[in-house]
Amino acid sequence: MPKTAGIILIGNEILSGKIADANAAYLCRELRELGVEVRRITVIPDEVDLIAREVAEFSRAFDVVFTSGGVGPTHDDVTMEGVAQALGTRVVRHPHLVELLQRYYGDRINDASLRMAEVPDGAELLSGGSLRFPTVFARNVYVLPGVPEIFRQKFDTLRERFRDEPYHLRQVFVVIGESAIAEHLNTVLAAFPELLLGSYPEFSNPEYRVKVTLESKDLGYVEAALAALLDRLPADAVVKVIQGR
Amino acid sequence: MPKTAGIILIGNEILSGKIADANAAYLCRELRELGVEVRRITVIPDEVDLIAREVAEFSRAFDVVFTSGGVGPTHDDVTMEGVAQALGTRVVRHPHLVELLQRYYGDRINDASLRMAEVPDGAELLSGGSLRFPTVFARNVYVLPGVPEIFRQKFDTLRERFRDEPYHLRQVFVVIGESAIAEHLNTVLAAFPELLLGSYPEFSNPEYRVKVTLESKDLGYVEAALAALLDRLPADAVVKVIQGR
Repeated sequence: MPKTAGIILIGNEILSGKIADANAAYLCRELRELGVEVRRITVIPDEVDLIAREVAEFSRAFDVVFTSGGVGPTHDDVTMEGVAQALGTRVVRHPHLVELLQRYYGDRINDASLRMAEVPDGAELLSGGSLRFPTVFARNVYVLPGVPEIFRQKFDTLRERFRDEPYHLRQVFVVIGESAIAEHLNTVLAAFPELLLGSYPEFSNPEYRVKVTLESKDLGYVEAALAALLDRLPADAVVKVIQGR
Repeated sequence: MPKTAGIILIGNEILSGKIADANAAYLCRELRELGVEVRRITVIPDEVDLIAREVAEFSRAFDVVFTSGGVGPTHDDVTMEGVAQALGTRVVRHPHLVELLQRYYGDRINDASLRMAEVPDGAELLSGGSLRFPTVFARNVYVLPGVPEIFRQKFDTLRERFRDEPYHLRQVFVVIGESAIAEHLNTVLAAFPELLLGSYPEFSNPEYRVKVTLESKDLGYVEAALAALLDRLPADAVVKVIQGR
């Protein structure tokens, strides 16, 4: 079984269309490269009870969970409270974070900035690389900030924790429509039931009409399935076969 | 109470990082403009039971639900089955869709293409504009395709169904940090508890450090809250105030 992940984006600004999230797409690509299966993404408002409910469900359902957003010093930054509630605990001020914040803010430190020292009781702090502030980790939940630059910087320091058996990807580009290949896909899937098989039509690309993706963590399996598919497709329908991305 | 909406994106290709979704961000912007509150977005795999579970929950929780993806002729297009199961019914072949597909495909029609005539029993077909195929609508669920051009084309024909009282937005750009304004935001929120108040730090913009957004469907309320905020902020901290987007 591949390692599974869930992603929780927290922020009214995404739901109200003010900001287009970039973190989920980035994380999906990175985790796939690492061999991790993302099973669900959810986008929810900055509301403690909703965050708690989603985090609790994701934490039970998936091996690892990532949250994005809601970790600053203002009224709408309630992710830590939500995560704490999900894990049946409360937030506490972490002395090491207090120290880091004091060093960063100096005389300008106030109650609002000290909110950023609050973590779910029992959480670990994960330092690494050139991070100014460590990543908060509680049970199987990594709490990441919404700002894309910092989100990526933090994920970079965590990346190797998640590495698993890689997926092997093959892509077949055809110039006939989805309806014309559907039966062949079904036949291949009947012979290779564990194959991850995708079919993506393209309506404005002059080079091909459908991209078919075949994936498995078992290299022999995906190669055999690819051979079976190419064997069935009309030879002049296939314009290109690619290994990997 | 504003009208609420939920968005369900269906597709392994998003979760596996092959495609970055564009439909949710588009729909959030459009619905906000129309005065509709998007309460949740979920991204799930092409699996009937998962689709059924999410659609059932969203359909109960929100006034309108939009699904994106999983409506083609291949094995991984199982949205209609999922929606049907969520609504306690099954899929049936709709005679009008069969007719449209026969006209479109002519002699090349086959079982795979006829899958696209399947809809949840009792669903309505919504025609409009220059749509080649109508939109499937069942209970409060609009079933839209994943391909962005067609998704937008279909939403355009539906748009006026969702128009509600507009949100009034004011944006204040400040050159001091979030920690320094947090207390002022809290004070304003205490006086205007119904205000939708957002605070968005910017780390690489030379013009400002935080964008504060104030929103309400009550124009007088948002104007009064804005005045209260500007009254509290140090005058030289505010670089710009914008009405609307």
